[in-house]
Amino acid sequence: MTEFEAIEKYFADLTPAGRGVMLGIGDDAALLEPGPDSCLVVSTDTLVSGVHFFPDADPADIGYKALAVNLSDMAAMAALPRWFTLALTLSETEMTHKWLEGFARGLGQVAGEYGVALVGGDLCKGPLAVTIQVLGECPKGREIRRSGAAAGDHIYVSGELGSAAFALEMLKSGRTPHPDCLARLLRPVPRIELGLSLRGIASAMIDISDGLLGDLGHLLDAGNVGARVDIDAIPFHERLGTECDPAQKWRCILSGGDDYELCFTVPPAKLQELERIGTPVYRIGEILAEKELRCIRNDGTKYVPGQAGYVHF
Amino acid sequence: MTEFEAIEKYFADLTPAGRGVMLGIGDDAALLEPGPDSCLVVSTDTLVSGVHFFPDADPADIGYKALAVNLSDMAAMAALPRWFTLALTLSETEMTHKWLEGFARGLGQVAGEYGVALVGGDLCKGPLAVTIQVLGECPKGREIRRSGAAAGDHIYVSGELGSAAFALEMLKSGRTPHPDCLARLLRPVPRIELGLSLRGIASAMIDISDGLLGDLGHLLDAGNVGARVDIDAIPFHERLGTECDPAQKWRCILSGGDDYELCFTVPPAKLQELERIGTPVYRIGEILAEKELRCIRNDGTKYVPGQAGYVHF
Repeated sequence: MTEFEAIEKYFADLTPAGRGVMLGIGDDAALLEPGPDSCLVVSTDTLVSGVHFFPDADPADIGYKALAVNLSDMAAMAALPRWFTLALTLSETEMTHKWLEGFARGLGQVAGEYGVALVGGDLCKGPLAVTIQVLGECPKGREIRRSGAAAGDHIYVSGELGSAAFALEMLKSGRTPHPDCLARLLRPVPRIELGLSLRGIASAMIDISDGLLGDLGHLLDAGNVGARVDIDAIPFHERLGTECDPAQKWRCILSGGDDYELCFTVPPAKLQELERIGTPVYRIGEILAEKELRCIRNDGTKYVPGQAGYVHF
Repeated sequence: MTEFEAIEKYFADLTPAGRGVMLGIGDDAALLEPGPDSCLVVSTDTLVSGVHFFPDADPADIGYKALAVNLSDMAAMAALPRWFTLALTLSETEMTHKWLEGFARGLGQVAGEYGVALVGGDLCKGPLAVTIQVLGECPKGREIRRSGAAAGDHIYVSGELGSAAFALEMLKSGRTPHPDCLARLLRPVPRIELGLSLRGIASAMIDISDGLLGDLGHLLDAGNVGARVDIDAIPFHERLGTECDPAQKWRCILSGGDDYELCFTVPPAKLQELERIGTPVYRIGEILAEKELRCIRNDGTKYVPGQAGYVHF
């Protein structure tokens, strides 16, 4: 049973329609309606020791990443993050000044930079796990959901892909990653400002945490469309070109996770507005009416990704 | 280092004043201000296997309790719970139909009864832990904080204390608790309706999750006051009278946790209004100006609790 099957089968029924819920389970965040003009954007991400970080990771990096990945979900809804809560489960190993000081410092760095305030939480004894919930705001109807892509829309990503996955593969095989790539793994940058500036421009958006093909697959599913991805147009760090064999390179770029860049679609009529936002973004393909996901090389040949498991149809 | 010291020392600074935060860390829930007339009430509670429930606990009981204890925090703010998110960390042992079906059923029972909708979350692989965050609403200024108690206010509890702790002690020593007491441990009833009906009546309120003396201590700290507790007036299940020696009985009633009853204070001028709400509540003492917590027997003698650790001054 996959994560997605378990959510659909056991938990989707616990979100009744209405009751102030504009959008429930299944996007980067939920949209709630506490007041008349604005909506509340809510997302939760958990980091578990040994799954999302090495058990001996620097606590400052854990604190940093735990908040950054949650802010990335806000970026992917074009929401402004405001507040967060922290549920921290610690063993006695971490209940020390050194660990807590580092963790709080990493967390505080992100909180300060993006102006989000810690407003509550829970501290428990147990195996190390960090759950952060972010609450953001967005004027009603200005949010960008996963479901809005239409045939003919251009597909963009906000930056280089594959660096985080490459750094992780290096670490797992005992080698030292390039500092740029390691930084992408340990200190991802949530694209809050870009997300906000895409309001009214992007038709659909998701953040790339599970790998491009997997996450683009979610976006295509939600919009009931397909896509052509021009894989040679995808930006990546030069080290992936010089230090990887082609199989590793494409695995990291197309199926590697943890990049936290935005993947979004823009209708042709909005392309001029997109140019005016200033932030560099990269066009990597086009939305198709046919419900398939095709990867095409520059020379026109088809590329079949090794890890088809991430392709949802 | 205690939980409270760690929160104060490392995390309190991450809640800057202002920025839409009406009340940050340190009450049953935070109060946020997304709109002009109402406030958003936010709380988080984590249940960890082996700490908050036995590793072989019935998943339906775990699901039930995880949501119920979070709703209890809403009750203790006089808030109406609306939505919740769920961060569920599961090992492969729990990633089965049987476990998930039971868990979702227990969760759904509480969600249905109190009309709260699951709106998002996260599913992760790791040692079993359940983090639930509840979002509730309250008209501004109608919430009941911990800090409002004044000398002369009467102190009340909403029901029998000690049953959950007694059931837990029985289970730990291999005996079978009375079904009433076991139900209090496994399926606590959040006092949502009572919490709402105390708006404008109670001056301060907290839920009893860490034991009466500990939680009343938090309320006294917040209000900068003390209290006299008439311990023979505290309601408890008859089994605690017949099956416990006095030390165990008073330990469960005064310092045992997990009761999730409300403890609140009412100014003398509001006592007639309190009588009109209909729900039975129990007067157990009085707020004093002197910052101490005195436990008094019916015959006027002082009772010194065995577990002074829960008494915060």
